[in-house]
Amino acid sequence: MKLFKPLTLLLFVGFILTSCAETSSEVKVKDMTELASAIDNAQPGDVIVMSNGVWKNAEIEFVANGLANNPIVLKAETAGEVSIEGQSYLKIAGQFLEVRDLYFKNGYTPINSVIQFKKDKKNAAYDCKVINCVIENFTQLDRTKKDHWVEFWGQRNELRSCYIAGKSNNGPTVRAELKGNQHANCYHVIADNYFGPRPRRGGPRGETMQLGDSYTSMVPSYIQVKNNLFYECNGEVEIISSKTNYNSFSNNVFYKCEGSLVLRHGNYASIDSNWFIGDDNSNNIGGIRVINTGHWITNNYFYNLKGKEFRSPLAVMNGIPKSPQNRYNQVTDVVVAHNTWMNCETPLQFSVGSNVDKIDVLPKSEIRSALPIRTTIANNIIYGSGSDVLKFHDKQGDILFQNNYVNAEVNFKGFIASEIQVENDKALVPLVGMKDKSADLFDGFNFASIKTDIFSNGRSKNQAGAICSEQFDVMQVFDFNKYGASWFSPNNKNHKANKITVKSSKELYEALANTNNGDTILLDAEVFELEKPLEIVKSVVIASPSENKSNVTFVASDIETALILGPGVDLHLKNVSLKGNKNMNCMMPDMHNMSIASNVFVENCEIQDFKSIYKSIKGSFADKIQVLNSSMSNLSSGFIVNSEVDAKGDYNVEFLILKNNQIDNIKNEFVDFYRGGYDESTIGGNFVFENNKVKNAGKTGSKEILLQTHGIINVHILDNNFSSIKSGMVAKLWGEKNNLESGNVIQGNSKIVTEEFLTQKLMY
Amino acid sequence: MKLFKPLTLLLFVGFILTSCAETSSEVKVKDMTELASAIDNAQPGDVIVMSNGVWKNAEIEFVANGLANNPIVLKAETAGEVSIEGQSYLKIAGQFLEVRDLYFKNGYTPINSVIQFKKDKKNAAYDCKVINCVIENFTQLDRTKKDHWVEFWGQRNELRSCYIAGKSNNGPTVRAELKGNQHANCYHVIADNYFGPRPRRGGPRGETMQLGDSYTSMVPSYIQVKNNLFYECNGEVEIISSKTNYNSFSNNVFYKCEGSLVLRHGNYASIDSNWFIGDDNSNNIGGIRVINTGHWITNNYFYNLKGKEFRSPLAVMNGIPKSPQNRYNQVTDVVVAHNTWMNCETPLQFSVGSNVDKIDVLPKSEIRSALPIRTTIANNIIYGSGSDVLKFHDKQGDILFQNNYVNAEVNFKGFIASEIQVENDKALVPLVGMKDKSADLFDGFNFASIKTDIFSNGRSKNQAGAICSEQFDVMQVFDFNKYGASWFSPNNKNHKANKITVKSSKELYEALANTNNGDTILLDAEVFELEKPLEIVKSVVIASPSENKSNVTFVASDIETALILGPGVDLHLKNVSLKGNKNMNCMMPDMHNMSIASNVFVENCEIQDFKSIYKSIKGSFADKIQVLNSSMSNLSSGFIVNSEVDAKGDYNVEFLILKNNQIDNIKNEFVDFYRGGYDESTIGGNFVFENNKVKNAGKTGSKEILLQTHGIINVHILDNNFSSIKSGMVAKLWGEKNNLESGNVIQGNSKIVTEEFLTQKLMY
Repeated sequence: MKLFKPLTLLLFVGFILTSCAETSSEVKVKDMTELASAIDNAQPGDVIVMSNGVWKNAEIEFVANGLANNPIVLKAETAGEVSIEGQSYLKIAGQFLEVRDLYFKNGYTPINSVIQFKKDKKNAAYDCKVINCVIENFTQLDRTKKDHWVEFWGQRNELRSCYIAGKSNNGPTVRAELKGNQHANCYHVIADNYFGPRPRRGGPRGETMQLGDSYTSMVPSYIQVKNNLFYECNGEVEIISSKTNYNSFSNNVFYKCEGSLVLRHGNYASIDSNWFIGDDNSNNIGGIRVINTGHWITNNYFYNLKGKEFRSPLAVMNGIPKSPQNRYNQVTDVVVAHNTWMNCETPLQFSVGSNVDKIDVLPKSEIRSALPIRTTIANNIIYGSGSDVLKFHDKQGDILFQNNYVNAEVNFKGFIASEIQVENDKALVPLVGMKDKSADLFDGFNFASIKTDIFSNGRSKNQAGAICSEQFDVMQVFDFNKYGASWFSPNNKNHKANKITVKSSKELYEALANTNNGDTILLDAEVFELEKPLEIVKSVVIASPSENKSNVTFVASDIETALILGPGVDLHLKNVSLKGNKNMNCMMPDMHNMSIASNVFVENCEIQDFKSIYKSIKGSFADKIQVLNSSMSNLSSGFIVNSEVDAKGDYNVEFLILKNNQIDNIKNEFVDFYRGGYDESTIGGNFVFENNKVKNAGKTGSKEILLQTHGIINVHILDNNFSSIKSGMVAKLWGEKNNLESGNVIQGNSKIVTEEFLTQKLMY
Repeated sequence: MKLFKPLTLLLFVGFILTSCAETSSEVKVKDMTELASAIDNAQPGDVIVMSNGVWKNAEIEFVANGLANNPIVLKAETAGEVSIEGQSYLKIAGQFLEVRDLYFKNGYTPINSVIQFKKDKKNAAYDCKVINCVIENFTQLDRTKKDHWVEFWGQRNELRSCYIAGKSNNGPTVRAELKGNQHANCYHVIADNYFGPRPRRGGPRGETMQLGDSYTSMVPSYIQVKNNLFYECNGEVEIISSKTNYNSFSNNVFYKCEGSLVLRHGNYASIDSNWFIGDDNSNNIGGIRVINTGHWITNNYFYNLKGKEFRSPLAVMNGIPKSPQNRYNQVTDVVVAHNTWMNCETPLQFSVGSNVDKIDVLPKSEIRSALPIRTTIANNIIYGSGSDVLKFHDKQGDILFQNNYVNAEVNFKGFIASEIQVENDKALVPLVGMKDKSADLFDGFNFASIKTDIFSNGRSKNQAGAICSEQFDVMQVFDFNKYGASWFSPNNKNHKANKITVKSSKELYEALANTNNGDTILLDAEVFELEKPLEIVKSVVIASPSENKSNVTFVASDIETALILGPGVDLHLKNVSLKGNKNMNCMMPDMHNMSIASNVFVENCEIQDFKSIYKSIKGSFADKIQVLNSSMSNLSSGFIVNSEVDAKGDYNVEFLILKNNQIDNIKNEFVDFYRGGYDESTIGGNFVFENNKVKNAGKTGSKEILLQTHGIINVHILDNNFSSIKSGMVAKLWGEKNNLESGNVIQGNSKIVTEEFLTQKLMY
């Protein structure tokens, strides 16, 4: 017998608003002058049509006044065929305006936002819409430069059916501003959008959405975020940072996003009927993090989440007593009911962030000791976590647990072992529900208001968990084509990778200049002697055609950097021997364009005679730098990723992974991986140093450290062999964080020390 | 030509809700057992009638469930004839209940409240009403014991047409509690009540109304406070302390209340169409004090207010940057429009509470340096303040002044000199309005929502100020009979004062035991030798029948206190010579009943040979202690009012006034007047020491102080003559407060010193 009966024949009908102008006149414009003139003269009902083609350096100010039944529309001649490129932006101000079908790409905004719902301090947008547009990789050349891609001001504006992806620089992708009565009670709608990949930023200010800030945390905003897809929004620990009151988040899909929906400031949020879907390979994918008062978290489905603490599937935080406005208010009056957690690790975590043990190292106004109170956890299902369903990071507080059903015995009041059914029917996510349809439920204050389930079906025969109905169309949720702009598909850009064989330095330079992303260059000669750096502008594999290593030697003494990494490239080196001299860095990002992270993968190589192997620049970022099964020798240093010196929580690489290598003759430190600034909601970077053999390394001195990882949260030093280490310490670990070592053998006097607490500069 | 045309013939029709029960049964009950049984059995529509008479020690739990159209009513047989006395309370829980016509007097509650809208933690009241009841002087015997007289819990409850007066003890009179979702969004209504005199409390926690607290300051409450009279609500600086969101205060009259309507925590309050009326004799009567975000202050009329700083007619405060939850948030997005200030001193004050000069003596989290921002002051009228209409206690901040009309030249943008008309037609308050009915107005964001004026008449021909209409019934506001319980008049208690002549000690004791309040006892003998203390239980004048002083000597050596002051008495002594011995205090409160303040007025007397003249007890309070034209000599000390040692901001006398006296031979300090605890929104006590001749006084020592006034806010030491003072200091003044001296002559080395800042224990 089937648990549920999905309606497989239901078709998804795209939700496209059409303007209802009856007396409209259509004006076609072909350049900025005509466009400005058309806007100036626009009357309610008018449709301004931008000619197909590239609009470069377009500074569009769409300032006009339509009517409720007769908006003024600005649209592309053909959806997607009007591309806004170069240094461009769109400002919208006035009433009842609609923008449709535009494509922002190949550029960035010269101001603080790409689309901004205001013209200036006095003129904001009301009842205006941006529909069916795309903003793709429209990111600043300098990653540290801050902007927003969609900035909400005014009231009752909408962002609907848009695709937005690829923001690498500083600043949330979507930002709602609420400073001033004319922007409060704004009731904006953000619906049916596809928020595509946002790469890891290496520090804070990489939210996909931030609604308000701590200064406006008392403002009622009533923003609705609904029916959106968030896919690989990995910018930072907060996918969405809700900082005002009465926001609602419903029917969204969070798929493989390394972060959480965080109720950071503000109160009385509603989080209903969302899907939080993880990935077996990531411990960084979270669910919902709760701070403040009066939130209702209902009908949500959490699947396969491995995040812990701040990134727990449900993280209910400790507050600071009488908290300063920009810190952590106590959690009170929160309801978590009718949710389902499936295959999550310790899904329910309470008093997350408790730091009462740090009372001696932090000011009193930083101590999160206020336990969650008047909070109800009821009628939920937890499946596949075994008995490991909840964790308290402090005392329990005043939390009521009632009628939560688990497919295991849990020795805690309010959790009931029960038979739970699983249905694996075609969906991205297996679905679970109660076998006993009449199992008792808790009837809390106002629980009658939870009228529907995650599929918006009625709860007339009420049950625990997010799914109550027996008939639903699960594909309506997981058909990713329904999200974003109708004319745009994010997945049509693959091309077939080519292999190019080169036999001389000249051919190598030519090949590098002409490859497409994903191509492989095979070094078909024993020696390449190079007079210039290699500029890597596309993702490329450089390899020897056989197991024998090809030798690449940089012979010109005036080369500063041997391999220069352009924005967004993945460089793979396989079976190559690289040789430089003591004044030359082996690899560095291109300091003229660091808009997007570039990555390095080295396997089975030899690297020798360099000043460093990899050196960061302020503002540069690598998602991953990985060296496996290689030898590195005769170096001043190894990996110098320490350029973010502003103590703002930023850092230059997310994952630095060094495994199974031979390391010999290193004059100074081998690794200097640095993150400054205290903001413990941030949880990067990551350093793995495993199974390496290191000898003759380090600077002489008892306070010198061979592997420096100041401020890095996750440090794993495992099973290495160290000999003839001159520095007093191999590493200095940060005990309270995820810094650990084991299985290391150190011959000689150097050692690995652990310091429990690290005194850092407060960031706020 | 008349400015306005009051409709003098309009009759006030009392607003009395009547239940619409159609199938009601009436149950008459004569004792608590019958009452409890009737409540237990009550069905929707039932009316439970309490028999006339005294119900003593009545612990009533009215727990039942009526229906919206069929409430359950609990009422008096005859309104006002059921008096609830002794140790009694009323708890209400359930739905649709009404309580009517009860009279709480001659007692106090044995629990934490007199009327409480809940039974216990789990059972609160919803849609319940208390109507036409009186709570009069139902105050704790111990002033320091805390209670509330009406405590709101649950949702949608009402307090309507009640008279409530005489609370002397610790704790707000009316308190709304919002901890928990079942009490949030409560929409309570407090309407048509008469809040009669609440005496000065001598410290904080004497509000007439407190809505929420800092812990629930983020909660939406939507409490409506409307059409109430507040008369002489002098408990403390806050008449009403609003601490939650979306409360509204409309059409209330604040008459001679020494305090302000304070928006202490929470945001988005509406203060519309209220009257704030002062008194020429008081500098303590304030208006509205503003903290936090988004308040709208419209259509209010401020008349004759002399308050300054915290008690300004309009006090807009500075905030603390990123304030802790229980301190001062920045003022933002406030609108102050269409109000009228008439005959007020410097009515508009901004950045009140700025203490940037105290950065060295207070922690950073106490420094109010955040200026008011995004605030609009527009379309107001200020009449009779000359050019002295506004004051900035710090830099200006981001405040927009627009189209404010003044009957004087003000050299400040946004204030326009204009002709303003005054109408003195029958009202308690002269009314002013624009002469030029078409003077320009500012059209701010959402100003169109200000649709009516202070008389609820339309603003179709809009004008500046609170009054826009030309026809209204001003007596509808100022007929005080319309407020409170219909059956109760607060003013029917005067009786004719008698004069009683006594010729012996025996007659004196008899007379004191039998006097009525206000009587005079004439001491018709030269000498009264007393063996027992005089117990003052009624307000009485004790005087010589002529200018020659009568001699009263306390001859028994075991008397501890010569005159014992009962609760609520005013003791006047005229032309009397009091003589004791060195072990005897002259006057002290009755330590067995200090429920209400007692006062002392001494004129043309001699007081000698006592341990002290007046000595306080912990918990005792005198509103006024005044000694004029008298001699005080051969004393250990004079006035010892220093019993509130808990550092909670309390003190034992509001006004200590000593003028035109001869003071001689005082062994220790002459005054020890003490207030501990830092809470600078409190602005008492008051000490006036003027035109006295003091000699041979004080304790020897350079650090000794003759007139000790630690923590007292208002200290005036004027035109005195001091000689042979043994203490190093005559007084030590608190420079940043209202402590001042002038015209004093000090012979010898003693001096008056001033200390700018006083380090105090923080109270919160």
